[in-house]
Amino acid sequence: MEGSGAPAEDILLRRPWLPVSISGCQLLAKSWFGETAYHILLTDMHCMWEERMDTADIQSRSQELNRRLRAPVKAFFTHLCEVVKPCLAGVGSQTENEVQISLTRQKDGSINMRLKSELAGLPFYWEFHCTPAPVALVCIQLVRPLLTMSRLLQRQVEQLGSLLVRKDAEIQDYRENGATLSRERLQTDVFEEQTHREDFIAKALPLLCSEQQEALGFDGELQELYTTIVTHGSARKRKLSEQRSAEEVERANKEPELVLNASAGGSVSSESADRNEKQTNNGEPETRGAKMVNRPKMQQSLPVTSTAAERPASKPKKKKVGLFR
Amino acid sequence: MEGSGAPAEDILLRRPWLPVSISGCQLLAKSWFGETAYHILLTDMHCMWEERMDTADIQSRSQELNRRLRAPVKAFFTHLCEVVKPCLAGVGSQTENEVQISLTRQKDGSINMRLKSELAGLPFYWEFHCTPAPVALVCIQLVRPLLTMSRLLQRQVEQLGSLLVRKDAEIQDYRENGATLSRERLQTDVFEEQTHREDFIAKALPLLCSEQQEALGFDGELQELYTTIVTHGSARKRKLSEQRSAEEVERANKEPELVLNASAGGSVSSESADRNEKQTNNGEPETRGAKMVNRPKMQQSLPVTSTAAERPASKPKKKKVGLFR
Repeated sequence: MEGSGAPAEDILLRRPWLPVSISGCQLLAKSWFGETAYHILLTDMHCMWEERMDTADIQSRSQELNRRLRAPVKAFFTHLCEVVKPCLAGVGSQTENEVQISLTRQKDGSINMRLKSELAGLPFYWEFHCTPAPVALVCIQLVRPLLTMSRLLQRQVEQLGSLLVRKDAEIQDYRENGATLSRERLQTDVFEEQTHREDFIAKALPLLCSEQQEALGFDGELQELYTTIVTHGSARKRKLSEQRSAEEVERANKEPELVLNASAGGSVSSESADRNEKQTNNGEPETRGAKMVNRPKMQQSLPVTSTAAERPASKPKKKKVGLFR
Repeated sequence: MEGSGAPAEDILLRRPWLPVSISGCQLLAKSWFGETAYHILLTDMHCMWEERMDTADIQSRSQELNRRLRAPVKAFFTHLCEVVKPCLAGVGSQTENEVQISLTRQKDGSINMRLKSELAGLPFYWEFHCTPAPVALVCIQLVRPLLTMSRLLQRQVEQLGSLLVRKDAEIQDYRENGATLSRERLQTDVFEEQTHREDFIAKALPLLCSEQQEALGFDGELQELYTTIVTHGSARKRKLSEQRSAEEVERANKEPELVLNASAGGSVSSESADRNEKQTNNGEPETRGAKMVNRPKMQQSLPVTSTAAERPASKPKKKKVGLFR
């Protein structure tokens, strides 16, 4: 259902956070739906939850929730996507099916999203069990992009500040040469960076904190900037990784020992990434950094217990080796 | 060691993230050291770790690590603070003691910070065992402040943009009235918001991503903004909470039933906060939102097993009731 050119993690990262409102809860959602697999993220900016499900998980939960339903996993997964995708895109259901969706917070800190629709004349139930996301994922999906956004906007503020100083120099030159304004109201105050910033923060911050927030404060312009940044970031990582691979191949041909050292040591951040991989909820390592070029983890982690009957109808062509071959 | 006017969580929130480099790891640190309790946070922007320790925890770890040491907990805690605070403030040790500090990443995703110094002629060992922080804490300490920073900076960009448009209108008026520049180089281009933003991002983003980052990208100006925002936020929450308390008392006097409803229902975000409290590592609820006005949790959670010998030498005067009275 998604282009399989980029890995699932990467696709999910590049998605915007879409505002959804379920059972009176304001949330932001991101989702990835694969062949018969999905990964959804929800946040209320006080926590972030996720659920990753593969073919076998989906098959088993579906049978548990719909005992009378006899259908191949692909069939009801297609139906599930059809009814849930619009809900998670914040636009409501666009199908003719009647969909009921509700959200409950669990005592263990997770949230359940229950869905009821109709499939071939029978009621169809689904539940998303979203557990608090590992910190590493919160850092990938929120902390690092938000920090880059802040850094970028801070620089833009600085640049606009110096542009204003240049405008003032131009204005001063006109005035010193005797120019006057035809309309008094066009006159502006000289821009003084420090004073302006202090005034701005003193006025804007209380306003920002008191006003009704749309999309939990993560609205239009910021979403756009988020997408620009994560897209740039993942493209850059791919490029760097390709460069590194090429360099490593080259180096390996010359000095095999050096490559061993390079892979064993690594930088602080890659070391951190490696450690953090161990924290994800379902034991799948996070796809990140140099590993962004791997194929989707979800498809790689299909459990061995899956039978031939569960095999997705059309798999990505790249998947030549795997558990089902 | 800290003013006990504000709760520990609140103090920690208002601290800046200070860059520290230990064993070649670039990290940002925040710490709070109380009477004989501490709470430290570390992040490399790929994960965030924390350790909270109270008197009994500190006593027991100290004896485990320093079998020959016989001293009241207060004495070696004072020494520990003296040697570790400068390290966590990124300025290195300022005492005359020789301090060795090293950091290792554990397979379970946590990090250990080992410290060796000298106390009364004997070697003194300490270890910080920092585990991945709960997502709720990451949201409080990083996600929400960073989002507010982005929102504020975005508005500042907009405001500076309209200021530039006004400067251009002033310049245009001078020109239309025949004014000319004495120095050609003072002439500026007309500011066009959309074009400028696109150009800026196209140039600044690759630069931002490729350059050597100081303080993991969370440097000077941003730190200042972070502090302004979290300080404003916690002051505002205290005020709101005081208002709410006053209103609730007033309402309780009039309509007791309404108060019950108000506490049972709550808003989406406070509901979320309540749920998230259950996730913190040591079982202590997060002090947040309306609960910001509570006294430090650490002092409240001193275990019942503590003996009189472990009682801190000077307790906050406010603490009139508790386990030791």
